[in-house]
Amino acid sequence: MSATIPESARGPIEDLRERVAALHGELVRYGLVVWTAGNVSARVPGHDLMVIKPSGVSYDDLTPASIVVCDLHGELVEGELSPSSDTAAHAYVYRHRPDVGGVVHTHSTYASAWAAVGESIPCALTAMADEFGGEIPLGPFARIGDDSIGRGIVETLAGHRSTAVIMKNHGVFTIGRDAKAAVKSAVMCEDVARSTHIARQLGPLVPIAEDDVDALHDRYQNVYGQGGQQR
Amino acid sequence: MSATIPESARGPIEDLRERVAALHGELVRYGLVVWTAGNVSARVPGHDLMVIKPSGVSYDDLTPASIVVCDLHGELVEGELSPSSDTAAHAYVYRHRPDVGGVVHTHSTYASAWAAVGESIPCALTAMADEFGGEIPLGPFARIGDDSIGRGIVETLAGHRSTAVIMKNHGVFTIGRDAKAAVKSAVMCEDVARSTHIARQLGPLVPIAEDDVDALHDRYQNVYGQGGQQR
Amino acid sequence: MSATIPESARGPIEDLRERVAALHGELVRYGLVVWTAGNVSARVPGHDLMVIKPSGVSYDDLTPASIVVCDLHGELVEGELSPSSDTAAHAYVYRHRPDVGGVVHTHSTYASAWAAVGESIPCALTAMADEFGGEIPLGPFARIGDDSIGRGIVETLAGHRSTAVIMKNHGVFTIGRDAKAAVKSAVMCEDVARSTHIARQLGPLVPIAEDDVDALHDRYQNVYGQGGQQR
Amino acid sequence: MSATIPESARGPIEDLRERVAALHGELVRYGLVVWTAGNVSARVPGHDLMVIKPSGVSYDDLTPASIVVCDLHGELVEGELSPSSDTAAHAYVYRHRPDVGGVVHTHSTYASAWAAVGESIPCALTAMADEFGGEIPLGPFARIGDDSIGRGIVETLAGHRSTAVIMKNHGVFTIGRDAKAAVKSAVMCEDVARSTHIARQLGPLVPIAEDDVDALHDRYQNVYGQGGQQR
Repeated sequence: MSATIPESARGPIEDLRERVAALHGELVRYGLVVWTAGNVSARVPGHDLMVIKPSGVSYDDLTPASIVVCDLHGELVEGELSPSSDTAAHAYVYRHRPDVGGVVHTHSTYASAWAAVGESIPCALTAMADEFGGEIPLGPFARIGDDSIGRGIVETLAGHRSTAVIMKNHGVFTIGRDAKAAVKSAVMCEDVARSTHIARQLGPLVPIAEDDVDALHDRYQNVYGQGGQQR
Repeated sequence: MSATIPESARGPIEDLRERVAALHGELVRYGLVVWTAGNVSARVPGHDLMVIKPSGVSYDDLTPASIVVCDLHGELVEGELSPSSDTAAHAYVYRHRPDVGGVVHTHSTYASAWAAVGESIPCALTAMADEFGGEIPLGPFARIGDDSIGRGIVETLAGHRSTAVIMKNHGVFTIGRDAKAAVKSAVMCEDVARSTHIARQLGPLVPIAEDDVDALHDRYQNVYGQGGQQR
Repeated sequence: MSATIPESARGPIEDLRERVAALHGELVRYGLVVWTAGNVSARVPGHDLMVIKPSGVSYDDLTPASIVVCDLHGELVEGELSPSSDTAAHAYVYRHRPDVGGVVHTHSTYASAWAAVGESIPCALTAMADEFGGEIPLGPFARIGDDSIGRGIVETLAGHRSTAVIMKNHGVFTIGRDAKAAVKSAVMCEDVARSTHIARQLGPLVPIAEDDVDALHDRYQNVYGQGGQQR
Repeated sequence: MSATIPESARGPIEDLRERVAALHGELVRYGLVVWTAGNVSARVPGHDLMVIKPSGVSYDDLTPASIVVCDLHGELVEGELSPSSDTAAHAYVYRHRPDVGGVVHTHSTYASAWAAVGESIPCALTAMADEFGGEIPLGPFARIGDDSIGRGIVETLAGHRSTAVIMKNHGVFTIGRDAKAAVKSAVMCEDVARSTHIARQLGPLVPIAEDDVDALHDRYQNVYGQGGQQR
């Protein structure tokens, strides 16, 4: 199989395998996953390739070597294990969103709760305006096994500034310019899903005015952090 | 006592004692137990024997040597400590379900909450369809001390694809082809018990259509993971 | 001051200082305390003395040497630090309950929530029947500074089998034959306070019949564990 | 830039950089922050200077050397990284509250939930009377970028004994005589925000009478701890 990997992609792939293996540790640290239910992928820049978690492997056992390489139709290109059963959804996103370098999928608790009642998460916290630029939208119910999930992600995110989408009855997918940014989005999504849920138990949420949301999002995306590198 | 353990069972028993001792650590890691309240057992394949946690021993102090061996009527066969007070229930399951190789019992928080209101957990998340093939059913209230709990588990699970059962006013029992699979079921049961509970605080759950549940369960049981070994 | 400590109490006091310092680590491990808000004490058997946490010292800094010795009126007998500001309440319990060898006080989250609405915790879980023999009762609101809290604890527990009492607007006090048993009670109290609270969000609790509660409590107190030593 | 740092401030600044770097670890330990969302600052006593977290740097990567020095208008004085985007708010507090030596900002979950519904936290727990002397007040919604947040903090706290303020749709700011005291306030604020929220799910809170709140606060501020140093 490895015949299809150009020599120039070798170095980047080894680097990404290490990063992606380590980023799964962040899913564990922030309590977004149990057992094996969640995965991170990264596009191999300049190639029609991605690296992704193998299916059903526990986070303790995940090493850079166990991370598999697939093409952007989800077919295994290199690796001894089967790719994540969510690979087709990740691949669809990379094919249709050339700006996306990383994708994350989890069943994190509070995001999944919004999914189980089929509601988008309203924007009542400045942290959410900062990171997501408004609500986190709800995507359709879609069976696994074809392009339905991937299409649902891409079509739903098209109409929003959010880098996260709640898939109905399922969980959350997030995107980013690289895998770390997508992991950050997954962490922040669960954080605001939780705060906003807990708020709603107290009473009606106070929405943030649209122009305040715009201003907050613009500042955070352009001013926060160390020149963008360390956001 | 050890006279009743055939020589051919010696190796498997030592192996299972180590696995079962270690699997109790997973109950702790996933927050399913406090103090000493939860136990894992495993059938000794090909023998009318099981290994199980001793009663009232803390998870910190649990070593392979402290795991006891019982027959399938719950009588102690080998070990210096008394077996778990839930041993009779485990034994009943092994006697009546020859396909079962592992049993787990916990009072995990959210599963116990459903137990305290006497409700089964409805299926509104694809992760639940995957793992449990539909709702997690409610078994009867049963006093400890005779076969009532074991019979309640077996009779309730008979009508469902679920490997977990919520016992009314009590907690959860799970089964698996081996002890690790039963632990996974316990971990996933608490995870969906939690997400589904939290969802219901937001509003009415959106159920998943029956044929979607069937398709998801079938795929997960037959396609997910690495040829079934690492699920 | 140490003149008032008889030579025969020296060994037991050193032993208890070590145990009590270590048991505070269990409060941290089970998430029952933040910052310095919670304390464990132990009676020095056969002497009118107790050992207790010093006031306002963080759990990281707590060493056996920092644990102070007080008489049963809460007066400092030995130690370089001031005793816990809850010492008077612990002392009152030891004076009026000669069967009690350990006392624990926490503001654990769910127990405090029941306290803030002034409700006892109803018995809808077998784990609660096992450990507490019925409801966990509500004690009165009492200002710190005199015997009001101690008297509230003792008078409330007099009418119940429970080893835990929820003090209105305050938190929880637990008792035990020794400090470890009181810590176990505090751990189990928060566990059932949480499960029962979460259950009530789903709907009305299903109570356990009185004779079932009696049978469960009796069995657990007399049969569970390893002959009582390791419960 | 360092020309503006007087020699006499060098030692205190190095000391504060170490303390403030370490105190961010307490925000992580108590679960008050995810990713990079929360910051601690300290006034340099006797100088118009403060030290504060750099923007967008993860807590794992935070070293004393990475902590930056700003003047009390939020302008960078020394450091290789950009200061926290909340620096202007911290600086405003130091300019207008000479008694304040430390400021903390977090989006901790339960405090943020009260913020998202625009409610102050009522005082129904003695721990809250002790630490905050009554309710934790609600400050106004304010956009980041000018003095609005700082002014909202100072004006809201002026009318209360509380060292914490919930900023509408945003999160929490706390103050203290030093950075450690402000961190303690942030930890206790989230603790009572959580307990009080959870209580309100059970039913109406029982308020504590005003004179009891006064007495509790007075005792805690003047008697608790080891002569004030270790509170």
